[in-house]
Amino acid sequence: MNLADYIRDISDFPKQGVVFKDITPLLMDHAAMQETTRQLFDLVGNHQVDKVVGMESRGFFFATLLASKLGAGFIPVRKPNKLPFNTISEPYSLEYGFDTLEMHSDAIQPGDRVLIHDDVLATGGTAEAVCKLVEKLGGIILQVNFLMELTFLNGREKLEGYEVKSLLKYK
Amino acid sequence: MNLADYIRDISDFPKQGVVFKDITPLLMDHAAMQETTRQLFDLVGNHQVDKVVGMESRGFFFATLLASKLGAGFIPVRKPNKLPFNTISEPYSLEYGFDTLEMHSDAIQPGDRVLIHDDVLATGGTAEAVCKLVEKLGGIILQVNFLMELTFLNGREKLEGYEVKSLLKYK
Repeated sequence: MNLADYIRDISDFPKQGVVFKDITPLLMDHAAMQETTRQLFDLVGNHQVDKVVGMESRGFFFATLLASKLGAGFIPVRKPNKLPFNTISEPYSLEYGFDTLEMHSDAIQPGDRVLIHDDVLATGGTAEAVCKLVEKLGGIILQVNFLMELTFLNGREKLEGYEVKSLLKYK
Repeated sequence: MNLADYIRDISDFPKQGVVFKDITPLLMDHAAMQETTRQLFDLVGNHQVDKVVGMESRGFFFATLLASKLGAGFIPVRKPNKLPFNTISEPYSLEYGFDTLEMHSDAIQPGDRVLIHDDVLATGGTAEAVCKLVEKLGGIILQVNFLMELTFLNGREKLEGYEVKSLLKYK
């Protein structure tokens, strides 16, 4: 099974000139979803993970599935004012603009071993902000793990010093 | 394990006078997340499910886990302009205001057997709109399934004629 066959290019979304990678065909096919989860799990290797952190909203899909398979808890990172309890926040720049990310202040305990997951590594701004949130709370980042990587945007440069893995690379 | 112990009341969120049920403590505890998934799976009973439809964003968490466990595909329902492909849409009123929901037009094939999942049944406006979206595409709704039900808001009245199940009921 070639997972890339289940990812659909959408031109000019969310804005003119951008080719968006639509993963909904992959999610709607049970076998493809399971195979993706298995391959993402394999990327994690021998790490013992306490918490999987997923980014709103598309990062949630495989972050919960990974947490379930890894024996870990799941932590959502969300846009401002979506999380109801006490939060910490971090500004970031992203491919299509600027925003802020929040995480509950009790989400990570000092020493927690953390896997960060998102659907796409683009410029790396989002993932960089999430790394900062996790480390503010004393978490140890084992790996930053993506379904897709747009290598031409050089997002890895922002994540230097971290283990970065991605399943599908687009040049 | 009492799952209700992992759900936290947050007063005056998202607005004055509302007590919000925060499920992040349940998600961050692996055993509680697994037990919730198992109990939601048990609610489904003997239905053979082709697609699990989950609502943005908190519905995504257990909808993907349920899809994985049920051998089904996962379909996201999202707020306007988030889904990149051709969509169908449905307006709805919700507990805290008004909005529109969208689903990809290729998400459901006629005759698909569908489980709808969301975290909370409140007034039922969201779930009612999702039922309409699924049926517009020819899907057969087997069950509408919730982690929590705020029974005092009488959301079930809007879902008459459907099988409605919830794990935790709050009076």
